[in-house]
Amino acid sequence: MNDIEKIISEAVSETLKESGISETPNKVMSINEAYVAEAGQFELNTELLSSKTKKAHKELLDGYVKKLNNISANLDSVDKTSANLNNSVFRSLKIDETYNHNAAFLHGLYFENISDVNSTISMDTISYMRIARDFGSFDAWQEDFVACCLSARNGWAVTAYNMHLQRYVNTVIDLHSQNVMTGIFPVIVMDCWEHSYYRDYLKDRKTYVFAMMKELNWSVIEKRVKKADMIAKVLRS
Amino acid sequence: MNDIEKIISEAVSETLKESGISETPNKVMSINEAYVAEAGQFELNTELLSSKTKKAHKELLDGYVKKLNNISANLDSVDKTSANLNNSVFRSLKIDETYNHNAAFLHGLYFENISDVNSTISMDTISYMRIARDFGSFDAWQEDFVACCLSARNGWAVTAYNMHLQRYVNTVIDLHSQNVMTGIFPVIVMDCWEHSYYRDYLKDRKTYVFAMMKELNWSVIEKRVKKADMIAKVLRS
Amino acid sequence: MNDIEKIISEAVSETLKESGISETPNKVMSINEAYVAEAGQFELNTELLSSKTKKAHKELLDGYVKKLNNISANLDSVDKTSANLNNSVFRSLKIDETYNHNAAFLHGLYFENISDVNSTISMDTISYMRIARDFGSFDAWQEDFVACCLSARNGWAVTAYNMHLQRYVNTVIDLHSQNVMTGIFPVIVMDCWEHSYYRDYLKDRKTYVFAMMKELNWSVIEKRVKKADMIAKVLRS
Amino acid sequence: MNDIEKIISEAVSETLKESGISETPNKVMSINEAYVAEAGQFELNTELLSSKTKKAHKELLDGYVKKLNNISANLDSVDKTSANLNNSVFRSLKIDETYNHNAAFLHGLYFENISDVNSTISMDTISYMRIARDFGSFDAWQEDFVACCLSARNGWAVTAYNMHLQRYVNTVIDLHSQNVMTGIFPVIVMDCWEHSYYRDYLKDRKTYVFAMMKELNWSVIEKRVKKADMIAKVLRS
Repeated sequence: MNDIEKIISEAVSETLKESGISETPNKVMSINEAYVAEAGQFELNTELLSSKTKKAHKELLDGYVKKLNNISANLDSVDKTSANLNNSVFRSLKIDETYNHNAAFLHGLYFENISDVNSTISMDTISYMRIARDFGSFDAWQEDFVACCLSARNGWAVTAYNMHLQRYVNTVIDLHSQNVMTGIFPVIVMDCWEHSYYRDYLKDRKTYVFAMMKELNWSVIEKRVKKADMIAKVLRS
Repeated sequence: MNDIEKIISEAVSETLKESGISETPNKVMSINEAYVAEAGQFELNTELLSSKTKKAHKELLDGYVKKLNNISANLDSVDKTSANLNNSVFRSLKIDETYNHNAAFLHGLYFENISDVNSTISMDTISYMRIARDFGSFDAWQEDFVACCLSARNGWAVTAYNMHLQRYVNTVIDLHSQNVMTGIFPVIVMDCWEHSYYRDYLKDRKTYVFAMMKELNWSVIEKRVKKADMIAKVLRS
Repeated sequence: MNDIEKIISEAVSETLKESGISETPNKVMSINEAYVAEAGQFELNTELLSSKTKKAHKELLDGYVKKLNNISANLDSVDKTSANLNNSVFRSLKIDETYNHNAAFLHGLYFENISDVNSTISMDTISYMRIARDFGSFDAWQEDFVACCLSARNGWAVTAYNMHLQRYVNTVIDLHSQNVMTGIFPVIVMDCWEHSYYRDYLKDRKTYVFAMMKELNWSVIEKRVKKADMIAKVLRS
Repeated sequence: MNDIEKIISEAVSETLKESGISETPNKVMSINEAYVAEAGQFELNTELLSSKTKKAHKELLDGYVKKLNNISANLDSVDKTSANLNNSVFRSLKIDETYNHNAAFLHGLYFENISDVNSTISMDTISYMRIARDFGSFDAWQEDFVACCLSARNGWAVTAYNMHLQRYVNTVIDLHSQNVMTGIFPVIVMDCWEHSYYRDYLKDRKTYVFAMMKELNWSVIEKRVKKADMIAKVLRS
């Protein structure tokens, strides 16, 4: 920023503070930092997955994060003037940025919301009430979510707060970045790539999905739903 | 909801209100209602697109919304027990739901943020400052955004607040639902399907993009950025 | 080839000649040469498309061929040891090679098989008989082919001899390389990207498709079907 | 066929016979029959894959064939007049027809060309010579093919005779039907979905690929290459 921008920026910052909108801190997290900030916390306690599957799966995540950071660095110096839809280095990097970005964050959300061996959901949680409100009942959500899990072609099933529709939806993602809804804030994420279950369940994805759903970490999900509730409030304001 | 749920729901609602989190109203908008609520406001004043292009484009949007509502209605009665990744009515509907959902909302956002014949952006807007912060400078954003526009294979370029990374990003979407980042709140949307420019500019997408960017509606964008700022605040809380 | 390979190669070549299988000439056409060999022959006589559409469309084809040759040249020197599914220069080039390859050859086949202002198909052609045999009747093919044209999401409808099934099939391709059947030898090709019709027909793809089908060049198609017939013979041998 | 068609058909058939082009027999194989005709022959002798992987993999193939036949039957009675690119039963069936068609035939070709415990390739085979001719050397092909195997995002690597280019090419397919070249006759097929190796090799796809390549069934491949050679002759005629 040059001087004039700085002065204006500071003035606006002041105004925002007065009107209660605190400004985003100047320091922008890079893709890497943002991810790393959440990384260390995945303890996969479940015995419903073998330790080999769990170890390999975490290594896959590491691979995605590493690629994401490589791509991010390459984008910093890529020639943008030759960007082209049929073939260009810029396009290829942008496409793979999205692929690895989604892979990294969906895996993070997934690891965080599975394998709670003491999994319980009580009817007085916001999660329960929002799900019941938007899917008719908790059971209806569950049936629909399982159907999504069985419909992904190596991909993901996601329950998300949809900011366009201002309600929760279930969606089916193929691979990491195909058939993805815009404007979604994911709250429940299930990995349905073969790498999540093939070592332990072979082609029986259904048994894997039911196993994971028995151990969903509802306290983690509740935190996300509370944020979604506040986002909902922002959107209606 | 049965009685016990209702009682709990009311209790929680009370608690939320006290802690300043107002509860989402019970009435859930259907996909159709959510969309229709925003629909009537697109006045395409620009003379940089022919009236034929503008008329046909609005009809395309109507088509997407109609399909989205059909799909939504069909999903209500589809057999979920036979959901299957290789082929099932459920999977096909879910995939096309996302396709038409994105088509509808991206078109809505696009119509709303183009064709302001008095387009101006001043440096003391939040839009300007956030863009400058996250892309290095306003010019750097512009160069990157144009590169995205030229890289979409019949698709979209989108500047969005990325809720995972807590910063703005530019992304390239193919068709309506391929290469879509999860967790994005779109603030600037450019249609790069051939139907947006071929009648008027033939294969010269670049001239079309520059024309549209001259008339971006920054007051519409500013409203979105302000919401994104409040969402950012929620995410950091 | 080293010396020993050369000697064996010549011996085998001799044997092949004796058994009636003439060897492929040593000179391998590059992607560029193969394409250029067919290029000059597209005379678009039709008045059902504007001259602007026809000119721009040929320029698009030139663009694909140029990109295909660039990619092909880049592949010659790319690092293959770092090939990787999440992101690598090799992968990006291979994916775009297929995209531009299909774009180039499908466009070539399309230009060649449309715009015969004296279009006729007689019932004693192999084309007519094969189509009638594999689709039940010529009319049934036509109805199915039109349905394919209306189903492509910016893409192609193709009638092809399917070498796996040893029969003709109609297929729907999205963009240039999605939903493509393996083992197909295309004989009738219809461009259903918006760039083929939007200048002249706006969003009315149906009228465009009917216009093109009135002027299909059946003598070009007959030559392809005759080759397919001989391929069929090879496959059954 | 009505009477007049029959008479013409017989006359043409006569002419074809005289000119050495024998007519395709009237009986058209359905998708199911075509597949079943090749089915029984996969003996997976290899010890480089566990019996669990081999059994599950064959069951997957059965699943694809069953779906393909269901889809084929549904297409017989689908409403074609409502075919539509945004959403229609016809489009969904056609897209999934291609997906399951490729899945079925690629799996068939893969099972047939792996697990020859006595695998050898001699330099005087047509396979060896064609590969050396079109890739520079056998080693160069191998390096390129492995790079393709490592680049597929859950998908396939395929060496195929490309009928447009009249030469062999290596290609990378994602899932079953994305990034597929038109006009290819596959001769060497490697499954790179996680289901082919995850049970036995976890995420180490490279070791799986090298294991499979050690036991390629070159006598099966040679038969395919000989057919491709005759197809090449047809195309040059």
